[in-house]
Amino acid sequence: MNDADPKSSGNIPGEFGLVAPRDYRCLEPFLFDSGASISEFTLRYETYGTLASDRANAILICHALSGDHHCAGINTLQDRKQGWWNNLIGPGKPIDTNRFFVVCSNCLGGCQGSTGPASTNPETGRPYNLGFPVLTIRDFVRAQKRLLDHLGIEELFCVVGGSMGGMQVLQWAIEYPATVKRILPLATSARQSVQAIAFNEVGRCAIVQDPAWNGGDYTAGAGPNVGLAVARMMAHITYLSDKGLEAKFGRNKRSGGEAREIFDVEFEVESYLRYQGESFTNRFDANTYLYFSKALDHFDLYGENGRLEDAFAPVEARTLAIGFTSDWLFPPEYNQDIVHALLRSGKRAAYAELDMDLGHDSFLVQSPALYDLFRAFLASE
Amino acid sequence: MNDADPKSSGNIPGEFGLVAPRDYRCLEPFLFDSGASISEFTLRYETYGTLASDRANAILICHALSGDHHCAGINTLQDRKQGWWNNLIGPGKPIDTNRFFVVCSNCLGGCQGSTGPASTNPETGRPYNLGFPVLTIRDFVRAQKRLLDHLGIEELFCVVGGSMGGMQVLQWAIEYPATVKRILPLATSARQSVQAIAFNEVGRCAIVQDPAWNGGDYTAGAGPNVGLAVARMMAHITYLSDKGLEAKFGRNKRSGGEAREIFDVEFEVESYLRYQGESFTNRFDANTYLYFSKALDHFDLYGENGRLEDAFAPVEARTLAIGFTSDWLFPPEYNQDIVHALLRSGKRAAYAELDMDLGHDSFLVQSPALYDLFRAFLASE
Repeated sequence: MNDADPKSSGNIPGEFGLVAPRDYRCLEPFLFDSGASISEFTLRYETYGTLASDRANAILICHALSGDHHCAGINTLQDRKQGWWNNLIGPGKPIDTNRFFVVCSNCLGGCQGSTGPASTNPETGRPYNLGFPVLTIRDFVRAQKRLLDHLGIEELFCVVGGSMGGMQVLQWAIEYPATVKRILPLATSARQSVQAIAFNEVGRCAIVQDPAWNGGDYTAGAGPNVGLAVARMMAHITYLSDKGLEAKFGRNKRSGGEAREIFDVEFEVESYLRYQGESFTNRFDANTYLYFSKALDHFDLYGENGRLEDAFAPVEARTLAIGFTSDWLFPPEYNQDIVHALLRSGKRAAYAELDMDLGHDSFLVQSPALYDLFRAFLASE
Repeated sequence: MNDADPKSSGNIPGEFGLVAPRDYRCLEPFLFDSGASISEFTLRYETYGTLASDRANAILICHALSGDHHCAGINTLQDRKQGWWNNLIGPGKPIDTNRFFVVCSNCLGGCQGSTGPASTNPETGRPYNLGFPVLTIRDFVRAQKRLLDHLGIEELFCVVGGSMGGMQVLQWAIEYPATVKRILPLATSARQSVQAIAFNEVGRCAIVQDPAWNGGDYTAGAGPNVGLAVARMMAHITYLSDKGLEAKFGRNKRSGGEAREIFDVEFEVESYLRYQGESFTNRFDANTYLYFSKALDHFDLYGENGRLEDAFAPVEARTLAIGFTSDWLFPPEYNQDIVHALLRSGKRAAYAELDMDLGHDSFLVQSPALYDLFRAFLASE
């Protein structure tokens, strides 16, 4: 079922060749946690490797807030843009596609091909915009389950994801315990922290106060790009760390001399952030950003009685949770809390903490120590 | 020279009564670090306590980015708004106005009565706006020196300040070593970190991209309030901490039921931040925010050769620097670095670290441990 043939692609050994995204169109109504429903939806997805005859070698990858289905390989020879976890997923890599069949889909509500606020509502012929139902992490997971049913996958060897992806990983183990054999959440939390809610709220304020947002009713390309860019710039800082920024940019001034205007770009880090903000508006929909950020903020497995063990009661999967020392958005202890609650519930769970300086984004960068943990967890009996 | 008379004010014992701000108008030209100059300027200031006959009991307080000259007492019986360091400064308090004569001025470039971008340029009859010269921490200090000369103060028993105030404290000791006997910088750094520059840049982008900013040319009250509020909301998070926010708000929902609109305020922390953002626009000028944030970002005592000792070579003052464990904007180690460089230069310096959960703003809150350090440092021979 894999669209890429590494042998014939002529690409670097160990890398995928072309991977074509596919669309799964589900024509059954979908009932959201909010009680609202839509009559049909599409999930865009990619797969890598081959599903084994016993169908027991599937790994599901869940993406983070700004991620998508394209997690490995390249889609076109023109842009050659590698998937966001291309360092981790591929032939011979820690998630070895010679052994595993890997699936990744753009979340429901997304803006990279899956049905979301910018999609046309078949009942009105107009974009959903704010008419799209409120989304939860559980909604993401239940929509993904439809895709896996469609692909004939009844068992997941492992579900893997960081940040918002890690929340989906936890929800998968709770919602479909018979399906999920292992989970590997990284740089995540069993509930969104108040500090993370606070940052999301600032981003939302920047977006909804941009006149171009217009109550969520804008045309593609003419959305609240100023507000979205500010939200992304701020969020980007929270994905990094003081140490990581110091190592990458320090107080270096941008080459090319003095700033022309008094509040023009002056430091390299400013130039970098402005580029991050601007390029984000070319690839991401502001309404999806709002909906996804709320899905994050509403995520709370502790529930009203504050007992994470209650939420984890159905879990059967073996767990390896990984935290990163410099991650201050989803601090390591939040990842450890997940494991402690699983252990208190008598589940098989382990916690590993990696000493990396790159902040929350540490889970996305090259790290032999991270690769070793992945390989060992996926190889263990 | 103090406008308040605690004995006759009828206020709570240990508190100041009314304190009237005063204006010092300097009619001599002021040459900025940038090379630009202005023909005159005003600094608004307050004083507390009485200058001793030997004029050796003066303490200068330097304010942070959003602070002002009103650091103790109240200005009117109507609003009764206490100064921002009222817990620390007063009769019998850690900075004891029965012993010390305390001075605090709104920085040059400020918007609380001192000459700044919103002030009228006497040469044009119009507001300076972006015609105001670029400001540095050293400019703040050199303007304050004029005020102290005017007040007849030739010796400062101590210069005290946190955050941007702490940068001024360091600059005072470097610039006027014969004047400054002790310094007490808190929650600060000898150079603005790249992470702090990054956050400032996001705030500036939010402001300058607000159409109401209009290249800095707006009338009072009709400025870029949306952008300034977003900048303030974000900055406010950086002044707190994950733990502090958790203790204060947790994931509590705002009382009054469900949000009416999908992206309306829902969590208490959201309501708090929106209030902080909105109220800030009522008291702060966006252009001053831009200028002050740049003064912070340009601050770098390490200089081109990276040797802090070189900058500290002239210092004669005894130093107590204080860092706070949960301060991630000006982390404790940056405060310790100041002391280490002073010690390497053979200066008298000590570092204290306080274990407090309230983040960068820890220096502003009630803390017996902090008070003890202040009292001991100011009492020591």
